[in-house]
Amino acid sequence: MSSAPPRLKIAIRILCGDEIAMGPGKADLLDAIVAQGSISGAARAMGMSYRRAWLLVDAMNRCWAEPLVETMPNGAARSGARLSAAGIRLLAHYRALQAAAARLEQGEDWAALQEALLPAPLAHQA
Amino acid sequence: MSSAPPRLKIAIRILCGDEIAMGPGKADLLDAIVAQGSISGAARAMGMSYRRAWLLVDAMNRCWAEPLVETMPNGAARSGARLSAAGIRLLAHYRALQAAAARLEQGEDWAALQEALLPAPLAHQA
Repeated sequence: MSSAPPRLKIAIRILCGDEIAMGPGKADLLDAIVAQGSISGAARAMGMSYRRAWLLVDAMNRCWAEPLVETMPNGAARSGARLSAAGIRLLAHYRALQAAAARLEQGEDWAALQEALLPAPLAHQA
Repeated sequence: MSSAPPRLKIAIRILCGDEIAMGPGKADLLDAIVAQGSISGAARAMGMSYRRAWLLVDAMNRCWAEPLVETMPNGAARSGARLSAAGIRLLAHYRALQAAAARLEQGEDWAALQEALLPAPLAHQA
């Protein structure tokens, strides 16, 4: 009888010109690079193509004063990657913004909205 | 010499099943209905088709315990619309969530991110 609970989704995006310098997907990709130790491994873990992951990393690296992702200097194209010191620091600040935004779920505005929200949409009327 | 300043965008969406019960565009549509007094006027003011505006209103009205938008009972299909008491109240709570999220721009995390963000992306490297 239960359905998916009402949900509050807060998406934080940081723009650099027309490019998304950081957002939910890019932050998750950085986490995956930390976990997997390479762009190719991170792409696999996230179910995206290597090309797409590389393009996301390239976009991030062009938006910030320092690259967020460093590839290991051993000559092989997909051999390994890690976050730079700047990448570690900026990802932490972005996650802190997300955590602060998530605290809105504890407030009275979301409580009032949630109370009035149906568990699922009514059907279209004839 | 100046370019667009770095920007923090925070999008708040409230989901009801797979439907967006409230989000930035729907809240702006509600404001336009208040200002214009009709769905058709709001659609014109926002540069969207009447059909699209009507579908957004219909989706909202099916997601909440009470309809947010009432059409005037004078028989004409596009004759007039206004927010219900519930619509006025819930829109205010949503705007309060947005305002609280916008205050993240005053915090040290966004300050640190903004400091490291380039004004525009670097060009792709050869």
